[in-house]
Amino acid sequence: MDKQQLAEKVVDKMMADDAFSQWLGIEVLDIKPGYAKLEITVRNEMVNGFNVSHGGIAFSVADSALAFASNSYGRVAVAMENNISFMKKVISGDTLFAETEELSIGRRIGVYNISITNQDEEQIALFRGTVFRTQEYHFKENN
Amino acid sequence: MDKQQLAEKVVDKMMADDAFSQWLGIEVLDIKPGYAKLEITVRNEMVNGFNVSHGGIAFSVADSALAFASNSYGRVAVAMENNISFMKKVISGDTLFAETEELSIGRRIGVYNISITNQDEEQIALFRGTVFRTQEYHFKENN
Amino acid sequence: MDKQQLAEKVVDKMMADDAFSQWLGIEVLDIKPGYAKLEITVRNEMVNGFNVSHGGIAFSVADSALAFASNSYGRVAVAMENNISFMKKVISGDTLFAETEELSIGRRIGVYNISITNQDEEQIALFRGTVFRTQEYHFKENN
Amino acid sequence: MDKQQLAEKVVDKMMADDAFSQWLGIEVLDIKPGYAKLEITVRNEMVNGFNVSHGGIAFSVADSALAFASNSYGRVAVAMENNISFMKKVISGDTLFAETEELSIGRRIGVYNISITNQDEEQIALFRGTVFRTQEYHFKENN
Repeated sequence: MDKQQLAEKVVDKMMADDAFSQWLGIEVLDIKPGYAKLEITVRNEMVNGFNVSHGGIAFSVADSALAFASNSYGRVAVAMENNISFMKKVISGDTLFAETEELSIGRRIGVYNISITNQDEEQIALFRGTVFRTQEYHFKENN
Repeated sequence: MDKQQLAEKVVDKMMADDAFSQWLGIEVLDIKPGYAKLEITVRNEMVNGFNVSHGGIAFSVADSALAFASNSYGRVAVAMENNISFMKKVISGDTLFAETEELSIGRRIGVYNISITNQDEEQIALFRGTVFRTQEYHFKENN
Repeated sequence: MDKQQLAEKVVDKMMADDAFSQWLGIEVLDIKPGYAKLEITVRNEMVNGFNVSHGGIAFSVADSALAFASNSYGRVAVAMENNISFMKKVISGDTLFAETEELSIGRRIGVYNISITNQDEEQIALFRGTVFRTQEYHFKENN
Repeated sequence: MDKQQLAEKVVDKMMADDAFSQWLGIEVLDIKPGYAKLEITVRNEMVNGFNVSHGGIAFSVADSALAFASNSYGRVAVAMENNISFMKKVISGDTLFAETEELSIGRRIGVYNISITNQDEEQIALFRGTVFRTQEYHFKENN
């Protein structure tokens, strides 16, 4: 199994088991080692009374992208610190894209920027996450 | 209407209209001007395949607490930047409490710490949020 | 005075009065409206006992870049929340470049990413800052 | 050597070698395992042209407090991600106190809140830092 196949297998397994990402309706657009691009469409049940998407929605999609990108090498990675700046309102019906950029990857620590854009290619939020890479593996054959 | 009544009226209205906070099953335990304490119980549909709560759940409860505390004065406030550190795993069935502390409140900007604890009073995450206070009001009589 | 001249005039004034940026030895490489690129060389008095640059040095250069970029339109802007991820050690003698990217600029709020790289074009830190734009101006003629 | 003696010995060594903390004029008010309280007085060379302390000064004092608290157990710890919210202006002549609170400490990761207050006990900034605990030790006898 090469690195690309491993990345896809890890994310397939993670998505299959991830009830919340499924509830969000996340679609995996692209996966590579150290990279993920996701899409969701904001539904009425994700918004507050102003018809504006709850801040937790953009965060959650970015957090899933962080999890997929940082786990794609086959080692289990867990988020330690995440931060997000909100730039533009998101409303019900908008489609969001969360795309990762790997800023650094070490033996123990990974840092990722995740850009969240809408269907008009406007940046609606920017997220940065730091993960800890454990010594557990998703599949035994990677040990 | 005194300040305490206004705070409760604002949060009642926000919760009534907030589909995502309702989906999360948020219960409002306490509201005062500049303060909110919320509770949720993590359900199976909020976890990933390891039975661990998605990072977006703790973030979302904290973000709702930030919204309620910062809007409780009657002026519409919107989150600009939030950050969260994760300290302890949360699993399905755990109950989370999000409690705000107002660090500063100015004419335009408010800063809040939100502590997220579980049913055993263990800190599971710490969140800090910065809001912008607009010149819109929740109710006309506050103008 | 056009926008480019105003940006340069603001930053010239800010640098002339900024004792700490002078102590840091900051050189302004490029200024445009909403943009700044700075350079410093790490000296022995900026490091800790491991000959590693104090975390406050990379932060301070990025914070000056944030200040210059966000004030370059002529309105006084002040930092509210900054965050920084450290990716690579910096040692005495290294040269650092801090370059801003404007993520959003509104009537009241600006958000900037600042990339900090070294002389080998390696990313050593990433900084994000949120500023509040006051209604004061650097020069009377901009009112 | 008990834990308290070790904490003091580590911080004494770190301060003795830390040229930038010395330049800042940091005084160590209290050290315990996992805890540090520091003091500095803002000097003219730390301010910008408005007589306001550069944001890098509050950050640097908090970052030193983070370093001392997280290294006080004898294992070398390095900062990975720090964030700071600014609440109140600091001017030349003000005295700042940076006091740590350990939010969590694991085998590999530590998370700290650092409160920065002035001589009037007003909170001027709040800082949170995440450190990675390496497998190096400050003194051989701790191995």
